[in-house]
Amino acid sequence: MVDILHKVGIKSPVDEVYAALTTTEGLAGWWTADTEGDGGELGGLLEFRFAAGGFDMRVRELDPGKRVLWEVVGGPDEWIGTQVDWSLEQAGDYTTVLFAHRGWKEPVDFMHHCSTKWAVYLLSLKSLIETEKGAPHPHDVKIDSWD
Amino acid sequence: MVDILHKVGIKSPVDEVYAALTTTEGLAGWWTADTEGDGGELGGLLEFRFAAGGFDMRVRELDPGKRVLWEVVGGPDEWIGTQVDWSLEQAGDYTTVLFAHRGWKEPVDFMHHCSTKWAVYLLSLKSLIETEKGAPHPHDVKIDSWD
Repeated sequence: MVDILHKVGIKSPVDEVYAALTTTEGLAGWWTADTEGDGGELGGLLEFRFAAGGFDMRVRELDPGKRVLWEVVGGPDEWIGTQVDWSLEQAGDYTTVLFAHRGWKEPVDFMHHCSTKWAVYLLSLKSLIETEKGAPHPHDVKIDSWD
Repeated sequence: MVDILHKVGIKSPVDEVYAALTTTEGLAGWWTADTEGDGGELGGLLEFRFAAGGFDMRVRELDPGKRVLWEVVGGPDEWIGTQVDWSLEQAGDYTTVLFAHRGWKEPVDFMHHCSTKWAVYLLSLKSLIETEKGAPHPHDVKIDSWD
């Protein structure tokens, strides 16, 4: 098993970051404009769609202002069963976001791609909250010939 | 042991990407403007400096147009002994860059930070080659309260 790990610091109260991870409006503002579902309810299903496909996530943990955990239940084979884990902590003027996409079976090229792409989207999240302007798909930064 | 993995695709011949990883001018154009040493010779030492410190790398493998491997011999404790591994491959109009920073002992917060920061610098490398304008330190994108 191998994991994708990232960290960003967002100049914001932790509640705003938590809202951007648990509301459809928030999620659509930084990851993909085509987001549906209920990220604010334990057991809720989130449906994220992109030009090339998408991901369905089941909300497995919600600890307001502290943690959000999603399990991937639909999408590419490599993603099924993996977990997307968000840990939040207020640190002075910043909210520290520790991000992990855990449980990849193999470090395939697609995992390398997704690691870089997650960084792009985490900076979109930071930008959304700090400047009110995120860069969700289809307005995301392209990193290679895939996306 | 845990690894940081990334991938970018750069619209360029592979030789230009290899040059940006093995010449002082190239490296200074995307990672840190304060770069010294010899990245084009096996066993050569590269000295990368940032406002908060820096990294010394020994060049361990050089396969023109295909691979560059550095071993970290100076810098923060967490980096010492880790390896920075670059694999290049021409794929149509693109050079695919598979990046790995291998051999972290623990998935500490600093590793999460470095993972996101490597993505920022890989996009700087892509930008340098595709647009002739990189964003090396101190002009790099800031991701948190550390840097």
